[in-house]
Amino acid sequence: MKYKFLNDYSEGCHPLILENLAKSNLSQQAGYGNDELSARAVSKIKAACENENVDVHLVAGGTLANLLVIAALLKPYESVISAESGHINTHEAGAIEATGHKIEYVRSDDGKLSVSGIARLLMKFPKYHTVKPRLVYLSNSTELGTVYSREELEDIYHYCSKNDLLVFIDGARLPMALVASGLSLADISGLCDVFYIGGTKCGALLGEAIVVVNPALQIDFQYNIKQRGAMLAKGRVLGAQFDTLFTDDLIFNLARHANAMAAKIATAFQNLGYRFLCPAESNQVFPILKYSQIKKLAEKYEFFEWEELDEDHSALRLVTSWATPEEAVDRFLKDLKSVTPVAAARRVIPSGDTL
Amino acid sequence: MKYKFLNDYSEGCHPLILENLAKSNLSQQAGYGNDELSARAVSKIKAACENENVDVHLVAGGTLANLLVIAALLKPYESVISAESGHINTHEAGAIEATGHKIEYVRSDDGKLSVSGIARLLMKFPKYHTVKPRLVYLSNSTELGTVYSREELEDIYHYCSKNDLLVFIDGARLPMALVASGLSLADISGLCDVFYIGGTKCGALLGEAIVVVNPALQIDFQYNIKQRGAMLAKGRVLGAQFDTLFTDDLIFNLARHANAMAAKIATAFQNLGYRFLCPAESNQVFPILKYSQIKKLAEKYEFFEWEELDEDHSALRLVTSWATPEEAVDRFLKDLKSVTPVAAARRVIPSGDTL
Amino acid sequence: MKYKFLNDYSEGCHPLILENLAKSNLSQQAGYGNDELSARAVSKIKAACENENVDVHLVAGGTLANLLVIAALLKPYESVISAESGHINTHEAGAIEATGHKIEYVRSDDGKLSVSGIARLLMKFPKYHTVKPRLVYLSNSTELGTVYSREELEDIYHYCSKNDLLVFIDGARLPMALVASGLSLADISGLCDVFYIGGTKCGALLGEAIVVVNPALQIDFQYNIKQRGAMLAKGRVLGAQFDTLFTDDLIFNLARHANAMAAKIATAFQNLGYRFLCPAESNQVFPILKYSQIKKLAEKYEFFEWEELDEDHSALRLVTSWATPEEAVDRFLKDLKSVTPVAAARRVIPSGDTL
Amino acid sequence: MKYKFLNDYSEGCHPLILENLAKSNLSQQAGYGNDELSARAVSKIKAACENENVDVHLVAGGTLANLLVIAALLKPYESVISAESGHINTHEAGAIEATGHKIEYVRSDDGKLSVSGIARLLMKFPKYHTVKPRLVYLSNSTELGTVYSREELEDIYHYCSKNDLLVFIDGARLPMALVASGLSLADISGLCDVFYIGGTKCGALLGEAIVVVNPALQIDFQYNIKQRGAMLAKGRVLGAQFDTLFTDDLIFNLARHANAMAAKIATAFQNLGYRFLCPAESNQVFPILKYSQIKKLAEKYEFFEWEELDEDHSALRLVTSWATPEEAVDRFLKDLKSVTPVAAARRVIPSGDTL
Repeated sequence: MKYKFLNDYSEGCHPLILENLAKSNLSQQAGYGNDELSARAVSKIKAACENENVDVHLVAGGTLANLLVIAALLKPYESVISAESGHINTHEAGAIEATGHKIEYVRSDDGKLSVSGIARLLMKFPKYHTVKPRLVYLSNSTELGTVYSREELEDIYHYCSKNDLLVFIDGARLPMALVASGLSLADISGLCDVFYIGGTKCGALLGEAIVVVNPALQIDFQYNIKQRGAMLAKGRVLGAQFDTLFTDDLIFNLARHANAMAAKIATAFQNLGYRFLCPAESNQVFPILKYSQIKKLAEKYEFFEWEELDEDHSALRLVTSWATPEEAVDRFLKDLKSVTPVAAARRVIPSGDTL
Repeated sequence: MKYKFLNDYSEGCHPLILENLAKSNLSQQAGYGNDELSARAVSKIKAACENENVDVHLVAGGTLANLLVIAALLKPYESVISAESGHINTHEAGAIEATGHKIEYVRSDDGKLSVSGIARLLMKFPKYHTVKPRLVYLSNSTELGTVYSREELEDIYHYCSKNDLLVFIDGARLPMALVASGLSLADISGLCDVFYIGGTKCGALLGEAIVVVNPALQIDFQYNIKQRGAMLAKGRVLGAQFDTLFTDDLIFNLARHANAMAAKIATAFQNLGYRFLCPAESNQVFPILKYSQIKKLAEKYEFFEWEELDEDHSALRLVTSWATPEEAVDRFLKDLKSVTPVAAARRVIPSGDTL
Repeated sequence: MKYKFLNDYSEGCHPLILENLAKSNLSQQAGYGNDELSARAVSKIKAACENENVDVHLVAGGTLANLLVIAALLKPYESVISAESGHINTHEAGAIEATGHKIEYVRSDDGKLSVSGIARLLMKFPKYHTVKPRLVYLSNSTELGTVYSREELEDIYHYCSKNDLLVFIDGARLPMALVASGLSLADISGLCDVFYIGGTKCGALLGEAIVVVNPALQIDFQYNIKQRGAMLAKGRVLGAQFDTLFTDDLIFNLARHANAMAAKIATAFQNLGYRFLCPAESNQVFPILKYSQIKKLAEKYEFFEWEELDEDHSALRLVTSWATPEEAVDRFLKDLKSVTPVAAARRVIPSGDTL
Repeated sequence: MKYKFLNDYSEGCHPLILENLAKSNLSQQAGYGNDELSARAVSKIKAACENENVDVHLVAGGTLANLLVIAALLKPYESVISAESGHINTHEAGAIEATGHKIEYVRSDDGKLSVSGIARLLMKFPKYHTVKPRLVYLSNSTELGTVYSREELEDIYHYCSKNDLLVFIDGARLPMALVASGLSLADISGLCDVFYIGGTKCGALLGEAIVVVNPALQIDFQYNIKQRGAMLAKGRVLGAQFDTLFTDDLIFNLARHANAMAAKIATAFQNLGYRFLCPAESNQVFPILKYSQIKKLAEKYEFFEWEELDEDHSALRLVTSWATPEEAVDRFLKDLKSVTPVAAARRVIPSGDTL
């Protein structure tokens, strides 16, 4: 079997989650999220947000979270603004449009939205003949592994508040973003209207925790959960994930491990003189290799070729997870060295280059 | 803690499922349902259907299954026919209409659809000014615990085939229906276009297995799974449920147990002279009690008051599950006896009465 | 050619509308409803409502008006309450559901909604598992030609206001209802949140004037007009209809004529001893005839057989319009007499019978 | 009053249409498009298509036509490909997305789609995680006034046929495109699956004639017309437009006039040394002027400033119509000359420049 750097959902879940499921297994619990495990999970998430007044809803997947949040927040003629590479725009099979809403996208090299990009898009909209932008969607970390700084998030949220725009953060990899940027869940709660905390990519079997911060958006929100098919009869399954992940900071420790493994990989590539498609800031690394090198590495490892750059080069996507063993990383880096010509490793990296 | 006869999803899952999850936990698996556990589950379900050419898709919940199947099968102007008590019509928060489709419903005392009911509804539809009925939705077992016989299903499917109507069976409790009616999955596969096998209510943590029998409906079906947010990144979670449940007929054995516990309850009620809202044919029993009796039972047990019948009487819903201990049933029946006046227990049950 | 009592849209438009179109034809006007004719129409409608603060939008048809108003007023999980015979429930090919919303209907013999019917429906809705009723839709006059009294409308609006329900009046035949009930547009403006004034069935070539009374619903409403394809480039066409119809009370005079012709027909039927499916209160009459009589009348006239009542009898629908010549009515009534046996005409009408 | 070159829908309709409406006004006609005027219109359009087997449906506006055709042709997970400047992508307030479908757009300087643009977009779509492109939407003439040649249309249709893509032509200005490119309606019928013939912008009060060429798409198509609110009760209004426009080639003669007036304007601009945003091929001209010049012309004329090019220059949009008097054009060109410095007029036009 080849070792996989394909994604951060190749393994099952942290063993403590299975333990939690097992020990509560035969207790009779109320259905549809009204069980004790979900109650504990919600309580711990509110504590982590340092805000008792947020609403927390646990659902089974990221696309489901995205489509139900976005549909809940918009009137029929309102649109959502995203980076072109935003997950909702590229990898959800039209899930957002299927709820009736246009995605307006902004081109971006690093996967991030900026105030200037949003502002440019607003200029295009005369009344009534075009959709009315109402929601800014951003992924943190982004699909390219980049991470928003506190200042970037503040700028966006401040601009949006002044311009009658809501902010929704897709946090499929929020734990990795937070440990990378030194922000807390409490910080995030103050910088958007709604966000979700990804469990699936950070040690859970499944599950995303939607946090509705804005009180006006909390009213009747749960109807959307039910209507989109996101309300599990055995809500305890989701409860057990987050009850465990939010005990003793487990989720952030797992994210820290994933980031550390990626940083080790990125540093090695950099030291060997490789360039990157974009900065390696969390648990995804996008180094640029020759096809001949890729071919050799692919004999022992699985990963995605993310983007063809020219006839000879392609950017890979290497993803680490909460479960990536350091030995697998070491083995990979050893193999990397063996496919790297000596000259390349000595090349001077121009200042300002990525990483 | 009161013992709950509230539903069949109060407990977690059969322990063998947790074992399956645990033993495969750290293996790296492909995402989105392309893992080995899902492959085994699909293979076993096809074998149980005795049909290699069906398509099987595992999703996380019943409403999700219903909305994505129905939306997949209909053109915008086509409608779905349901019994008035059908789950899609009563308990899914408008999930079907949210995908753009009208539900046309037929009144029915026992929760079942019949050919005459469907035929009457078809007569109402002149072209172009009303929706075009295209799909018949039926739950088996129904929301009232009743079960379709082979003849009833044959009649409906035959009628529908002749009238350009598709048939979709909501099988949230299909295992209980099958063991009650003596039909097999292979039989069901021959009597509809699409159905799903409920895992959640039959021993799984979560999961419904959609089986697309009609080849014309299989094309591109998986896009719908993704678009509606039903494609779990860690498809292995769903795979593990059905891989286990379809080993050594586990799912049917669990259904048999649930039905047996319900039958024991129903027989006791009948012997004590109680009437029923509808026949007790699977794992749901709807006995009619006086409020004074209900109040006493409610001190020790939880259950739903399903329907107020008059000032003095209400029908309860008592549900058993794969996990209901026989001792809990025995205890309940003893308590029932103690709230039942002697006269009632001696009442002669008129022939033709329910059960 | 047989004379048609089929509907109230068999003829073109009142000649003054064609004059208005012709005399303004070559003037250059702003597009999308910003023309002078629309401005005049809107201004006159506001005056007739005795309320400068209503918003008025002119659109091309009734189904279009219904679907865009209802979709504009509801969140995804909210439903609309209608009488079972409501146009949106029976004759719009699922237009409302296509915008994502469930219609909850109440049975009603005379086509009207009542407070008790609405209240009964509200009782069925526990939170989150069913849609949330938010809007009451009523047609005035109804699809059965009946007309709401001031008291009935007050009761409904009062009840709805207290129960967080909005009220929308489908006024495809509102002019006929108003002259029948002695209410004014100003009255109606005070008894609902949104309504529309039907032009198509009252002398216009096309056009319905949507009046948004509730200020909270006025915000951004025009986006819905555009998004549903209801914003005509040459809005002047619609403007000319209502500019003319609201000059010198033309629309109400036309409605009065239609009602008068229907009343003449209804009185004749009554005097001849016929019964009715429901009271003849506006420009639609539903007399009950024998098939043998229907067959003879159908040799010279066109009309709908509305409802088969038994083996021998059916209720007809006879509709008069702004353009129905009194001679056509007289000719019809003469023919009616000739198919009526003398005995029937002498039959004593029991008090309490319809009309 | 300033003379308007704002658009091609500033005036009413060709006087013969009003005559047609007037002379048929009081005849009783069947509703919903089953009238004699619509029958004549449909028959003449079929004849012009030289194809009796096409289906023709008359609806009131372009956005309505676009949304109902596109929604009718696509399954929920299928998308439509458009040029970035396509009307559905820019000026319909999200009407297409409101029916549940994603628009995938291709950048294009001249508003046209090409095979290479479509092909590039197809490469982006791995199965199931992204929408499935199924329909190519193109406007002819485009929103920039450019016109597809026979070869361009053949290339696209041929490519699409081979790649399981349908082709839909938005013909809001099809008559102008056809007379510009020397193609006939019969030619167009052979180069796409569905198209519509714009009446609104070519002399009608309102109305677009949807022509469904592909027999598989004709089945039940009319349900979509009704469901989207596009079926006028008095279909005669639409019938009268096309009955008149398709008598003695009126529609094409009107288009020819509009194009001729635009050509006169374009030639004058070119002779005076102006550049253009894109080639002036039909009835829209996009000359580039200095703001100081624009300001002076705006004192006497109305037109859109289409696109700011730099601090000093902007591209105007000047539109002529079937009703544009040649004297208005002459007056405008005289005024243009007076704002044009002599030097500019003498400037040598580089070969290969636009027009």
